[in-house]
Amino acid sequence: MPEVDKYAVIVAGGSGTRMGSAVPKQFLLLSGKPVLYYSIAAFLEAFTDIKIILVLPNGHEYYTTSLLELFPSSANITVVNGGETRYHSVQNGLKKVHGEAVVFIHDGVRPMVSKQLIHACYTQALEKGSAIPAIPVTDSIRMVRSGGSDPVSREELRIIQTPQTFLSRIILPAFAQEYSTLFTDEATVAEAYGNEVYLVAGERSNLKVTTPEDMILAEALLNARLKNE
Amino acid sequence: MPEVDKYAVIVAGGSGTRMGSAVPKQFLLLSGKPVLYYSIAAFLEAFTDIKIILVLPNGHEYYTTSLLELFPSSANITVVNGGETRYHSVQNGLKKVHGEAVVFIHDGVRPMVSKQLIHACYTQALEKGSAIPAIPVTDSIRMVRSGGSDPVSREELRIIQTPQTFLSRIILPAFAQEYSTLFTDEATVAEAYGNEVYLVAGERSNLKVTTPEDMILAEALLNARLKNE
Repeated sequence: MPEVDKYAVIVAGGSGTRMGSAVPKQFLLLSGKPVLYYSIAAFLEAFTDIKIILVLPNGHEYYTTSLLELFPSSANITVVNGGETRYHSVQNGLKKVHGEAVVFIHDGVRPMVSKQLIHACYTQALEKGSAIPAIPVTDSIRMVRSGGSDPVSREELRIIQTPQTFLSRIILPAFAQEYSTLFTDEATVAEAYGNEVYLVAGERSNLKVTTPEDMILAEALLNARLKNE
Repeated sequence: MPEVDKYAVIVAGGSGTRMGSAVPKQFLLLSGKPVLYYSIAAFLEAFTDIKIILVLPNGHEYYTTSLLELFPSSANITVVNGGETRYHSVQNGLKKVHGEAVVFIHDGVRPMVSKQLIHACYTQALEKGSAIPAIPVTDSIRMVRSGGSDPVSREELRIIQTPQTFLSRIILPAFAQEYSTLFTDEATVAEAYGNEVYLVAGERSNLKVTTPEDMILAEALLNARLKNE
């Protein structure tokens, strides 16, 4: 396996309004540390030589400074400003990626991502060019329409997570395209540029912290994980 | 609003193999009581006069006896045997429903259902004939196909929960139909009999306990709820 550089573009652009909190959700505390701390620490733990590119909205200098102080000075972390949409935020982050590399693009509010999943994404991206974590759907699904709803077979559906992982030679040209509202995640950007993307098994515990209840769930998973270590 | 009888058919037919446990998952302990205890207690708390019909697989008499001892003798709980599929289990349970009633059909492994959601289902079922709890999809979704996958718009998709709630005059004739493999839940059974079904806002915390990690999540939600009481 060739040795290539690794970059993790960690995107935390949200203003956290769904959380009902003045503090953006990526800076809310889980067991005394910000959500973003865990997202970043997972990648540093997976690869000691990884370069972290942290994409943050403007105006949170105080939180950002406090966050960075939690990491040793040896950690390679660069902060860049977010953009108007997720696409533009990732695009800003990717400007810091150079040369042949594996690039992880991760939601800052998925703090429970495991080292194992990061390694699995790395291995598959090297082999196939991409790795998009996906898990099966366990609940029934319906599709709403004007005046009602219809059942949808869940067998073929997958819930998509991050880190969406790519070779730099695939994702950098894809993000040079003009923005489209069809770009809902990085996989759709890569596809619009003509690439097939490849799924990899995600993890149910890799949850996206979106509501106050998600914070309770994330803290419970964190405590259970610490107890098992 | 007319006064009608209320029945909760609580279905716990699973053998719990996904949980990696010899004890079926509906009997695993959350804060010292079986998962099923909480599912039943939620309905008894929502309506003191509700009749509980508990559908259980054969061969768990010990667990069943211990479970029933947790409830006061005034609680109206009938135990019936499960069938070959979810459809047949619910069908067995519905044989105990008589007269004009609102019927809740609930997964035994959804212990976190709230009194508020049960009341909302009751009110809507009385008014429209049915109430199917549904929540929006917050993650990206893809559909797998031979050799790849395609993005799916999540805007119109809804995750379906229980209690799926119906007027007895709608759900009883629907369950007299011949079984079809298209019957993935009670809503699809009602529709196959020619009824439109109506969604109601579900709750993200109303999770289905399917994996060991779900037990950790359910226990965290339970503890957070007890702390707030």
